[in-house]
Amino acid sequence: MARAWYFKSTPDGLPTLDNVALADLPHQDLGPSQIRVRNAYLSVDPYMRGRMTTVKSYVPGFEVDQPMTGGAVGEVIESTAEGYAVGDKVMHMNGWRDEAIVDIAGGGAPTDPQKLPPLNIPIQTFLHNLGLTGATAYMGLMKTASAKPGDIVFVSAAAGAVGSAVVQIAKKKGMTVIGSAGGAAKCEWVRSLGADACVDYKAGNLLEQLSAAAPNGIDVYFDNVGGDHLDAAFALARDYARFAICGMIDKYNEADQGHEFKYILRSIPARINMRGFIFTDYAEFMPEFLAEVAPLVLSGDMKMQETVHEGLDTTFDAFLGLFSGANTGKMLVRI
Amino acid sequence: MARAWYFKSTPDGLPTLDNVALADLPHQDLGPSQIRVRNAYLSVDPYMRGRMTTVKSYVPGFEVDQPMTGGAVGEVIESTAEGYAVGDKVMHMNGWRDEAIVDIAGGGAPTDPQKLPPLNIPIQTFLHNLGLTGATAYMGLMKTASAKPGDIVFVSAAAGAVGSAVVQIAKKKGMTVIGSAGGAAKCEWVRSLGADACVDYKAGNLLEQLSAAAPNGIDVYFDNVGGDHLDAAFALARDYARFAICGMIDKYNEADQGHEFKYILRSIPARINMRGFIFTDYAEFMPEFLAEVAPLVLSGDMKMQETVHEGLDTTFDAFLGLFSGANTGKMLVRI
Repeated sequence: MARAWYFKSTPDGLPTLDNVALADLPHQDLGPSQIRVRNAYLSVDPYMRGRMTTVKSYVPGFEVDQPMTGGAVGEVIESTAEGYAVGDKVMHMNGWRDEAIVDIAGGGAPTDPQKLPPLNIPIQTFLHNLGLTGATAYMGLMKTASAKPGDIVFVSAAAGAVGSAVVQIAKKKGMTVIGSAGGAAKCEWVRSLGADACVDYKAGNLLEQLSAAAPNGIDVYFDNVGGDHLDAAFALARDYARFAICGMIDKYNEADQGHEFKYILRSIPARINMRGFIFTDYAEFMPEFLAEVAPLVLSGDMKMQETVHEGLDTTFDAFLGLFSGANTGKMLVRI
Repeated sequence: MARAWYFKSTPDGLPTLDNVALADLPHQDLGPSQIRVRNAYLSVDPYMRGRMTTVKSYVPGFEVDQPMTGGAVGEVIESTAEGYAVGDKVMHMNGWRDEAIVDIAGGGAPTDPQKLPPLNIPIQTFLHNLGLTGATAYMGLMKTASAKPGDIVFVSAAAGAVGSAVVQIAKKKGMTVIGSAGGAAKCEWVRSLGADACVDYKAGNLLEQLSAAAPNGIDVYFDNVGGDHLDAAFALARDYARFAICGMIDKYNEADQGHEFKYILRSIPARINMRGFIFTDYAEFMPEFLAEVAPLVLSGDMKMQETVHEGLDTTFDAFLGLFSGANTGKMLVRI
């Protein structure tokens, strides 16, 4: 019997097992234009916390008493849909379960599962460097922040899935890169990716450390954290700096508490341009992204690190680990 | 003997008479390529508080024991500079004094005094609706925020010099405009300028009032205040909203205190684009600004309100009044 994680109630702060439940998925025969996928890997991502809130017009929320959703890759085991055959490998959004039924709209609809190209790389790569996280890194850096060779780039959570991709893409593009991460081991990993410096935010005052690492200030800030990281970026922004706001994991579980900023006033004299984004805003640049990044992944020039939990039962623990810094690189669940 | 206000020391919080001094200006004969101007009106503006701080890379600071500077209009009474004759009316940046010597670089240098065109309007108009404040309003609204007909625009400090210009330009351009101001009289003035609504921030919770005035949210925020006004804009921003950050008067005198934001996280799902600006960034659009706004001023379609202090001695009081809301419209000093 297939199983799934169900959303039960809106958490107050960090989610707990009271807010979700692992339960059987009733068997359903396929209707027309559907596929059944045996999931191989599930993605857990910080943005999913946003789907557990009721804050007005945040991302569409999970539905109570329904299975949660998210990125997944797997193999088609049954199909009534044109263009999808048993044995096809696909990336789709019905994660948080071991077996998924996916509707096929057809005609190249963007919501349809993506058939994975026959590249000689592990299938879960399409959940990170060649999927959501890699595209988020590329679009935020190159499109939202219009980063260019010679820029000084600061990226927070640089040991994370998105951050480590930002570091590597920025270095390939001839930028100076300063990352931040929590702890010496993560910072070592960030430097091994090519970062010119890495600030360990657990080792002391972030702004002081960043000032030392970026004595001439920063041109670009890729924000995964918010809070004191964003404030440090306001403090050190050079004229016409661009901030791509990808995430603010700092406060996902404390949405009713404010972020305090001492340096936001510098937006004016430094003409800071701060923009929130979601990578799907740049759908027309997906071919460009794949053309630039797929060769780096295939050649091994773009490193990736995964933290893999084993078994559907561990999915919720994997998700919670995102908020305690338990992952280096992409957090995944192998089924 | 001419006199000037000298900068003496960096204020801690609201400036006091300990930080400045009114004193004689030693007489100087003109050197080559200089003009002597008898000032008629001086401008005092919130941004000048920024010039009294030592916060790293804020606007260039005033020099200690030197006369302060700022916008002024007056009449040339002596000239050794080509192209400037006795009797010419000019706008220049050597304010905070009754008589000024101004260097002329020549060749149309942007730092040279602007000779005022012979329009039938009061000379001080070139310090507000046809000068710094009008251009700030126009550039911030039309260039930084890319506002367009049909947009829902929120502007804070809408009874102020810049704010009241924003209200009127936005209405002429076919936008819906919601202002904020402190007190019923100021709000009445804002509505008389054509604003569809005005929120009195002294009359209750700002976010609740703005939610009621903008039930469908806002597309553009023109920020003169920062703090809770900016946070309310984060809360109510529609998708792809643009924020032009012109000023944050809320904290100019408390630079060491943080602004607290509860809704900045909405930058991501709403893809908010927040940009600081200074109107001189858009120098190439000054002819466009004058072509659009001068006819409105000349026809009387663009109203202006002034709060005029009398005499050089009152200049510092006029400046302090900016921070207690003592002005409606442009704060000026007549010499």
